[in-house]
Amino acid sequence: MGVYCFGIDVGGTTVKCGLFQADGTLLEKWEIPTRLENEGGEILPDVARTILDRLSEKGISRDEVAGAGLGIPGPVNDAGEVSCAVNLGWGQKAAARELEELTGIPSRAGNDANVAALGEAWKGAAEGARNVIMITLGTGVGGGIIVNGEIVSGHHGAAGEVGHAAVSRHETEKCNCGNKGCLEQTTSATGIVRVAKRELAACAGESSILRSLPELTARDVLDAFKAGDPLAVRVVEKISRRLGSSLAIFCCVTDPEFIVIGGGVSRAGEPLLECIRKYFRQYAFGPCRETPIVAAALGNDAGIYGAARMVLQK
Amino acid sequence: MGVYCFGIDVGGTTVKCGLFQADGTLLEKWEIPTRLENEGGEILPDVARTILDRLSEKGISRDEVAGAGLGIPGPVNDAGEVSCAVNLGWGQKAAARELEELTGIPSRAGNDANVAALGEAWKGAAEGARNVIMITLGTGVGGGIIVNGEIVSGHHGAAGEVGHAAVSRHETEKCNCGNKGCLEQTTSATGIVRVAKRELAACAGESSILRSLPELTARDVLDAFKAGDPLAVRVVEKISRRLGSSLAIFCCVTDPEFIVIGGGVSRAGEPLLECIRKYFRQYAFGPCRETPIVAAALGNDAGIYGAARMVLQK
Repeated sequence: MGVYCFGIDVGGTTVKCGLFQADGTLLEKWEIPTRLENEGGEILPDVARTILDRLSEKGISRDEVAGAGLGIPGPVNDAGEVSCAVNLGWGQKAAARELEELTGIPSRAGNDANVAALGEAWKGAAEGARNVIMITLGTGVGGGIIVNGEIVSGHHGAAGEVGHAAVSRHETEKCNCGNKGCLEQTTSATGIVRVAKRELAACAGESSILRSLPELTARDVLDAFKAGDPLAVRVVEKISRRLGSSLAIFCCVTDPEFIVIGGGVSRAGEPLLECIRKYFRQYAFGPCRETPIVAAALGNDAGIYGAARMVLQK
Repeated sequence: MGVYCFGIDVGGTTVKCGLFQADGTLLEKWEIPTRLENEGGEILPDVARTILDRLSEKGISRDEVAGAGLGIPGPVNDAGEVSCAVNLGWGQKAAARELEELTGIPSRAGNDANVAALGEAWKGAAEGARNVIMITLGTGVGGGIIVNGEIVSGHHGAAGEVGHAAVSRHETEKCNCGNKGCLEQTTSATGIVRVAKRELAACAGESSILRSLPELTARDVLDAFKAGDPLAVRVVEKISRRLGSSLAIFCCVTDPEFIVIGGGVSRAGEPLLECIRKYFRQYAFGPCRETPIVAAALGNDAGIYGAARMVLQK
């Protein structure tokens, strides 16, 4: 087992890189741009180059490196093969094997949301927990499932895709995925704005801070909720009920030790979490009722932590 | 690794026992009564005795036995400790350790529904699959989650308790667990009768085979559905929609290779399964849409198979 490892989180704009000690100490982190030309064909060579540069700079030999882990925005199977990653221009790609061939360092790859969940379970909000559900509320809703300390990828690489759980059977509008009623449609940043606009239209006579804003954002809705604006409070209660009741359902599947909530929306902090917890407890199966719901702790670094952890588990 | 192992499925009335070869060949099965006196204190000594008797009968030495697995009707953690098993009269019990001390044979214990799922994934309807969701539709609704070929127990031993996923947010009656809207309330044998009675009351003017029956059972409802009785068809469509949409949600968590449906209700066979599949496909996230939904294949033997498998994984 090497004493160092790399955690690499490949995003659509930048690639976040971390050099870790095997005990999880982050020694250094940096970013390189994600070059999208040639159908993303430059990305892995760029990653390989930055890894090898760092090694020679630090005078670290390859033998001292346990491996390099990759977080990828798309479905990845247990063999580290990507079936597609639209934001990178990738179709099918044996990402882990390619990086291994380019660097001579053992590599693994996982879906970025899954990898972030592993990071939070290793060194973040659920540090040391072996069974975790993480949900990331951003532009969309992603998630990651950890069981026995490892990422659950799923047979089609779709495990943890809790944003596409069709929990609102009466929804009439379509989700980006083509289905109707996905959790993402009400609890993503976009979803929150959507629910707020519906409520504003339905209660046209009611005054609200939100009416004066030119372009409504999820942050506006959450700020108005925290300021006690009655309409915004109703919107956030609605969203929290949907999320809390959905988390209660997910807990009947894997019964985690922690539920971690990440992503931009989670920055609304304790007032939002407390609202989600209230509905979670209402719908949760008895033994899971007190499962802690906590905010993610590693922010944008969750991906590099999780990617590094993956290779230490080889 | 021994060449033999025992699979023991402890029920409220009988204990089912199986002697297996390590390759999964069932050599012999038998039952002993479950003695409930002394708060179930006789059960494990009885199990130990029947195991040791069988060994001496067959001239098998303990060294040749890989272990004995126990399926228990209650929550069991990864250490084989039961927190309670009402039907056996047990409170907290270190079941695996006790059986090990009584027999001198390595032992493991798991929840009976989880163990049955492992049996189906080993030698049953999902033979060889490493990622399975099984749901058992009986008097109640149980379930088991298999990931990476192993049972997911959960932090509180509640993983796989999909019958208590609160999927019907508008339900007004209480489930046995105290919550409202559990999947069990509509899709167990009891639930099916409940939904049918509601439909009969709501459509009082409509004729139906079901009206002539003195004491309605789930089997009556499913038989009338297969005979094309319009009211029974509506009831089964309603139940199948609830079950299919719930399975679609569960798949977003662990994304299994197979969904296995067991229990008495599943004996209604292909017409019921086809109805469940139709709704599953309607609500499933794209990559999971074609996940096969199959009937359990091992019947009452799933428990002894799964219990045996557990000890081979030690």
